Amino acid sequence: ANESAEQSAPVSEDGIKLGGAIRTNYSHTSYSDGNKDRTGDFAFDIFRLNLNGSIGDVLLNAEIRFFDYMTAVKYAYVGYQFTDDWQVQAGITQVPFGNWPYNSHNWFFSTNYYIGLEDDHDLGILFKRQLSDNWQLDLGFFKNDELGGVDGYVGSRADRYSYDIVGARLPGDGIYDDPAQPLGEYNTLSGRFGYHVSQGELKTELGVSALAGGLHNGQTRAGDYHAWAVHSNSHYHNWNLQLQYTKYQYDVDNGADRMAVGAYAFYDSIAAEATSATVNLAYSMPVEWGPVTGLQFYNNYGLVYDKSDGSRDTMMNITGFSVAAGGLFTYFDLVHAKNQPFVGGSASGDSSETERRFNINIGYYF
Amino acid sequence: ANESAEQSAPVSEDGIKLGGAIRTNYSHTSYSDGNKDRTGDFAFDIFRLNLNGSIGDVLLNAEIRFFDYMTAVKYAYVGYQFTDDWQVQAGITQVPFGNWPYNSHNWFFSTNYYIGLEDDHDLGILFKRQLSDNWQLDLGFFKNDELGGVDGYVGSRADRYSYDIVGARLPGDGIYDDPAQPLGEYNTLSGRFGYHVSQGELKTELGVSALAGGLHNGQTRAGDYHAWAVHSNSHYHNWNLQLQYTKYQYDVDNGADRMAVGAYAFYDSIAAEATSATVNLAYSMPVEWGPVTGLQFYNNYGLVYDKSDGSRDTMMNITGFSVAAGGLFTYFDLVHAKNQPFVGGSASGDSSETERRFNINIGYYF
Amino acid sequence: ANESAEQSAPVSEDGIKLGGAIRTNYSHTSYSDGNKDRTGDFAFDIFRLNLNGSIGDVLLNAEIRFFDYMTAVKYAYVGYQFTDDWQVQAGITQVPFGNWPYNSHNWFFSTNYYIGLEDDHDLGILFKRQLSDNWQLDLGFFKNDELGGVDGYVGSRADRYSYDIVGARLPGDGIYDDPAQPLGEYNTLSGRFGYHVSQGELKTELGVSALAGGLHNGQTRAGDYHAWAVHSNSHYHNWNLQLQYTKYQYDVDNGADRMAVGAYAFYDSIAAEATSATVNLAYSMPVEWGPVTGLQFYNNYGLVYDKSDGSRDTMMNITGFSVAAGGLFTYFDLVHAKNQPFVGGSASGDSSETERRFNINIGYYF
Repeated sequence: ANESAEQSAPVSEDGIKLGGAIRTNYSHTSYSDGNKDRTGDFAFDIFRLNLNGSIGDVLLNAEIRFFDYMTAVKYAYVGYQFTDDWQVQAGITQVPFGNWPYNSHNWFFSTNYYIGLEDDHDLGILFKRQLSDNWQLDLGFFKNDELGGVDGYVGSRADRYSYDIVGARLPGDGIYDDPAQPLGEYNTLSGRFGYHVSQGELKTELGVSALAGGLHNGQTRAGDYHAWAVHSNSHYHNWNLQLQYTKYQYDVDNGADRMAVGAYAFYDSIAAEATSATVNLAYSMPVEWGPVTGLQFYNNYGLVYDKSDGSRDTMMNITGFSVAAGGLFTYFDLVHAKNQPFVGGSASGDSSETERRFNINIGYYF
Repeated sequence: ANESAEQSAPVSEDGIKLGGAIRTNYSHTSYSDGNKDRTGDFAFDIFRLNLNGSIGDVLLNAEIRFFDYMTAVKYAYVGYQFTDDWQVQAGITQVPFGNWPYNSHNWFFSTNYYIGLEDDHDLGILFKRQLSDNWQLDLGFFKNDELGGVDGYVGSRADRYSYDIVGARLPGDGIYDDPAQPLGEYNTLSGRFGYHVSQGELKTELGVSALAGGLHNGQTRAGDYHAWAVHSNSHYHNWNLQLQYTKYQYDVDNGADRMAVGAYAFYDSIAAEATSATVNLAYSMPVEWGPVTGLQFYNNYGLVYDKSDGSRDTMMNITGFSVAAGGLFTYFDLVHAKNQPFVGGSASGDSSETERRFNINIGYYF
Repeated sequence: ANESAEQSAPVSEDGIKLGGAIRTNYSHTSYSDGNKDRTGDFAFDIFRLNLNGSIGDVLLNAEIRFFDYMTAVKYAYVGYQFTDDWQVQAGITQVPFGNWPYNSHNWFFSTNYYIGLEDDHDLGILFKRQLSDNWQLDLGFFKNDELGGVDGYVGSRADRYSYDIVGARLPGDGIYDDPAQPLGEYNTLSGRFGYHVSQGELKTELGVSALAGGLHNGQTRAGDYHAWAVHSNSHYHNWNLQLQYTKYQYDVDNGADRMAVGAYAFYDSIAAEATSATVNLAYSMPVEWGPVTGLQFYNNYGLVYDKSDGSRDTMMNITGFSVAAGGLFTYFDLVHAKNQPFVGGSASGDSSETERRFNINIGYYF
């Protein structure tokens, strides 16, 4: 990368580099009397290792996360740049969908993450055309979710980083129960197209995404599912605005209107069908205050509505800022949310209460 | 690295280096209707870290493997070269036995692996005389298996990389049951001698191996066990031929004719006594196709017969090839097998069906 | 460190370095007939990874340990040197208390470790004034224990490296039971002051430590706890003498006289109130015997008495030596102990037997 033109000897860039992150987290919440009584809790979040690099033109990118309650591989893929513009990836890789790589600025992501439509990683093969002539394209075929699908040989199907459905909710099931009717997504086709336009200082990506696949109960096909989204991502000086409109549907043969999902060693539920809208605004401010080199202020808003199970909307609004200081990256988030996981609710909850969580996530990345 | 040519001082090679591997795996099998209905499954295999190197003449070699269902240390030993020819190793190290380091060319190893006689690692001390004057010798004393034996303080005795017996099967036990009568191997003596001969382009190692030790039930000695093998390993131009004939016997005082084994978070069974024969042929082909630098084609055949529990033979035949491309090493294996773990059977099964598994293991090693 | 005086360009020391340790352990004990019958056991101890360094003036220090029975983060904190003398640390960091960093020379630590008062790590913020003008000072506020306290989201509250209380023992509870009345420490203030004096070759640190915090049952405050200690740490030529006198008290509202503790995937008990005295003597001997560069001989003695639950004293005496050879550091310990965890007893046991354990811990550190 930094070679001068005079340099004739080839510089090997071969090798795999170790990186990682360590995070701890403070929270003060409206929905736990014990937490309030203790003036909040301070918890260990993750010990993360990353492996990244290339050997002989074939690249590797992998991340493993150690929590107090599970060990999970977030992604693990090999890649090869087979033309100037196209790369192929195989393994656990990110499903191309909507605003990329994140549809949010805060530590909690957007509401879409909790329905498996933001920063979702599955097992498959992905073709990525990089941005050129103002457009980019991702085409993926995902054999199954990152834990090998409905029959994956795993300790627990809930021990995963990114949300996926793990079953259909039958009448009488609790929303946090182990799934009585296991299901797994399989043979999913996924595509994402982005077109970049600019007017003076305003640069915008406009995009459309879609995915469709099957649902398997271990013996046979038990339904199918699909989702689509339109999004925009605009930068103007230090401002960033992300918009996204998303619809998804799980169509189970037995007509279930609610699905079981699993992640973070925990089973939860989502509606089988719903619509989501998100609006994310951020302002970045480079500074030089001792070790502090950057601030970002943001407001992220998301709504999941028109739920097929008749439950009330999920809403999450996060006002906060992040601080970069050396290897340290810290989020200060004030969250207000209804029926939102990690904020006192479930995406399939039916509460009319708005819960509050103040959160500080202290992360060190290298 | 930055020494000038004039510098005569010895180059310190001190330091521990991090390596590892990431693997994912595709399989299509005859024995799972669900797998066939989904046109196969794609699963995460391992996230592996290796530590290797030396500090002040004492060396370290260790490997830990993270799976979706367990975390296991494959080996972890310290070593010291106390003469030019002899090295001593202490810790979890490989039991010297038969073709070395592997009695196979494919991703599944040979049938011997599943009866604990290929790539087996236990806790002990090993003296290794390196090849010199055409002969080499390994002498080991293994205090117990890699999980501390019958009384080891572990989460599960089945959470291990290499197969060991964990109990005796009593009448009425199922072959996949948790062992009702726990046992552990202990105080095992092991030796392996190899003699190298060459005639023109043909180079052959001829070898003999033997091991013998006790079985402990937690309170007292409950039996003993032994195994022996003869092997040959020949190279002629790009061809490699491995032959091995092996016998083993677990002699439990209560006369059990079947043993419980544990590995990969799973309990299974083997006959208390059996004979094994393996034949492995391979052809290596260096190429330069884009990033691809080498191919190896192989056929590996193994048979376990004369089983003391009266069950039918275990047979496995694997035809396949491996592809080296940069850090990537991929196995394409077509397996036909009877009564074979990981191919729809148990080493103590009594099936007359031949099962089939087509498997692609995508590994990145660094 | 290796800069020449002429070098004027600043040398960046940025970057995070990977370190670690691998250990295996041999033991021969008086209290397990099975162990004696097998002439001892050899077990895997730990696979440890350390991350240490700084990026842009902010430092990181973290350690994760993989055992056969649990995965645990020992410490994980970020730090910043905000004046020449003061550093602030946030995350899982060591509670400043008594002899530092260890109140022992052997592999087992002192009896204080098992009551949570040696090498204890909790989640909080710590201000450390380094030694200057002959004094040093540590002031900490620990929000809760390293697993997030009584409501921490964890696999098991016993999966931790350093002992903490996890409950109060109710009448009828066994000393190894899962805690029926869960409790967690929270909002603990901690301080440690050390003053250094020297007379010729004799250098001594004299110190005083104290900590006090609350006990929470998940809903509300259920009591409080405190501890204090005086210590001295003297060096004279190759000799080292450590003395410490310690008192602690858990004052539960329901009057419990015994507490449940958890660590190493195991629940145990301690008296709610007790006194401890420790005396540690060591002699260091630099040598050059092949790869061996140092020996240390030691005797460590500890007594926990005046226990509130009326149980007999805990006593541990360890005579041993450690050997440094390259990356290898090996402890040879002969332990005699009464009512001591890991030596056949519980800190809340009532035995009058003295148990014996001979132990060799083979560690490789890098």
